[in-house]
Amino acid sequence: MLDFTYNISTKILFGKNTIQHLADEIEPYGKEILLVYGGGSIKKTGVYASIISALRSNALVFHELPGVQPNPRISSVRKGIDLCKTYDIECIVGVGGGSVIDTAKTIAAGVYHNGDPWDLFLLGDSAIKKALPIGTVLTLAATGSEMNGNAVISNEQTEQKLAIHHDVLRPRFSILDPTLTFTVPQDQTAAGVVDIFSHVLEQYFSPTREAFVQNRIAESLLLTCIYFGPIALQEPTNYEARAQLMWTSSLALNGLLGYGRITDWATHGIEHAVSAAYDVTHGVGLAILTPHWMEYVFDSETLDTFVEYARNVWKVKGADKAVVAKKGIEETQRFFGSLGMPRTLREVGVKKEKLEEIAEKTVMYRDVGKFRTLGKDDVFRILQRSF
Amino acid sequence: MLDFTYNISTKILFGKNTIQHLADEIEPYGKEILLVYGGGSIKKTGVYASIISALRSNALVFHELPGVQPNPRISSVRKGIDLCKTYDIECIVGVGGGSVIDTAKTIAAGVYHNGDPWDLFLLGDSAIKKALPIGTVLTLAATGSEMNGNAVISNEQTEQKLAIHHDVLRPRFSILDPTLTFTVPQDQTAAGVVDIFSHVLEQYFSPTREAFVQNRIAESLLLTCIYFGPIALQEPTNYEARAQLMWTSSLALNGLLGYGRITDWATHGIEHAVSAAYDVTHGVGLAILTPHWMEYVFDSETLDTFVEYARNVWKVKGADKAVVAKKGIEETQRFFGSLGMPRTLREVGVKKEKLEEIAEKTVMYRDVGKFRTLGKDDVFRILQRSF
Repeated sequence: MLDFTYNISTKILFGKNTIQHLADEIEPYGKEILLVYGGGSIKKTGVYASIISALRSNALVFHELPGVQPNPRISSVRKGIDLCKTYDIECIVGVGGGSVIDTAKTIAAGVYHNGDPWDLFLLGDSAIKKALPIGTVLTLAATGSEMNGNAVISNEQTEQKLAIHHDVLRPRFSILDPTLTFTVPQDQTAAGVVDIFSHVLEQYFSPTREAFVQNRIAESLLLTCIYFGPIALQEPTNYEARAQLMWTSSLALNGLLGYGRITDWATHGIEHAVSAAYDVTHGVGLAILTPHWMEYVFDSETLDTFVEYARNVWKVKGADKAVVAKKGIEETQRFFGSLGMPRTLREVGVKKEKLEEIAEKTVMYRDVGKFRTLGKDDVFRILQRSF
Repeated sequence: MLDFTYNISTKILFGKNTIQHLADEIEPYGKEILLVYGGGSIKKTGVYASIISALRSNALVFHELPGVQPNPRISSVRKGIDLCKTYDIECIVGVGGGSVIDTAKTIAAGVYHNGDPWDLFLLGDSAIKKALPIGTVLTLAATGSEMNGNAVISNEQTEQKLAIHHDVLRPRFSILDPTLTFTVPQDQTAAGVVDIFSHVLEQYFSPTREAFVQNRIAESLLLTCIYFGPIALQEPTNYEARAQLMWTSSLALNGLLGYGRITDWATHGIEHAVSAAYDVTHGVGLAILTPHWMEYVFDSETLDTFVEYARNVWKVKGADKAVVAKKGIEETQRFFGSLGMPRTLREVGVKKEKLEEIAEKTVMYRDVGKFRTLGKDDVFRILQRSF
């Protein structure tokens, strides 16, 4: 186990009607609130109305940044920063999934940055010193952004999708009411499950072999996705399925799995380049790329990790390690397929002639991956196989 | 999954030489420190010297409460409170295992209580409003006290051992350097493993059946104890074994496993009554009692939990559920035995004529257990079987 510092500071209010505590949780951070949300589904579901009434009855003043899109844009962040400066915002509340929360985080840091907020993505995480306090109301189980200090933002001009990470970006509190995900459509539910699954894999496939308890916990979360993913698709109002997936989304990327080891993140790197160019749903891109990444990095050196994965997660039997390992990869692809995920990049509108440029953009600042380090040619080959 | 609020606020500095950060971590909380420790082993190992030099070179003023015993006494707590009041202590640092840390916590809360600190154990947790900040340097993987808000203290006059729980008692930081446990003797290492194992079982054996991800994570921690416990006994300086056990001790009782479900704690209740009367090592008492508790509460209603446990933890095969379940109980007892734990209360000096009084004390304030609620007669029968 490598050395680490554990600091998961986000308070989680989990359960039915936890939204009733929103105003109390905001209170310590100030009275002037920026409410960040997406395309208006929270207005249809009534979440917006309950939030507004809670804020009003507690004499909190709020301003709004609606319209945050999936694969959220730096242009939304810029608008948010302007609002924060104009109205002396003291606390930002993101109501939605990862896109909304990531936008809220980047606004929170951008307020204290002299210059354009996109700089933060190019300067590196040490450029972040301070951020406004953030709270979230989660409406989609997927990114884990509700419990970590990560944000991923797209730049529509440069066709880039980049990430920042900092402890000051960790939400002070997150409200996780599984019933708020009852109305998430089937395809988004499925993409969310793949996203959770992929977050676990990116940490499980690690060059640090000495991570026993971390690996067993990782397998626990994968088993939860495998068990409850299909149930949530079949029965969207099954509370237990929604609750288990929601909590698993937070545990998958709050730090727990990554402490004490090096983590990979190659597939996320490639997917971010794909979805920066084509606005593909993140989980869909991951579902297509992951099995091909697995096949590409599978060799005699990585064999044992694949065998461990196949046996413990997919319960593959047999003594021939290579056969067992390959079966694990097949099972992964089969699982994503069973959730209704496409299998190829062409199905989601990616053009073959764009693959090389996507590969270039993936490694624009550095090679990707730690389990196996991938350069441009490696990424290009994975993209071709995924096409 | 039941509703819950997640708030694990302790910062963990995990790894070799993390003790070098001690003074920096104390700094935000004040300059006047109370150092709490045990029987002097930290002086032999050199931990004491490095702490003292770190405190001195950072101009921190410290006072000392040495001599905290296993099954720590309320009399030590009283001494500590006097020192805190005399010297206007601002931060308490516990250097040791659970006994030392629990003493530090109780002092921290007792400083703000008008009256004798034992009152806190009788009045209930709501009597605790405030506590001095606490930091810890862990030297034994066992109780998990380094990452939670629990403290267990014995009253030598009344022969009681009772617990308090409060978020204000959570250490602000804990320094977990696995090399500090290299010198822990075999019997204490083994008792620590049993304690960790038992903490997981007390949450796994839950009346809340809908706790899928929690149960899988619980099994992960049990598998880690089973794998690394024997290694730590054989090779006391095996870093990975010590590291995995240390981190597992914290994860086993920091809240993670218990969130979203009701937990049991009957075996702990009984053991506390035993060790209040006989000063038995906590892990030893748990090793003796746990299999008998299991056999006692095993019936057609609890069968499925036992089957899940046997199959997932002990890899027991077979279709006959009752046979599978019983094999899981046997494996538990065999594992504790393989660690060198005694099997009977008589081996550790408990007298048969005392069993009824121990049973009475166990349920003095309330019946114990939630998986199965146990009254005095139940506890008496479990004690007799364990005798």
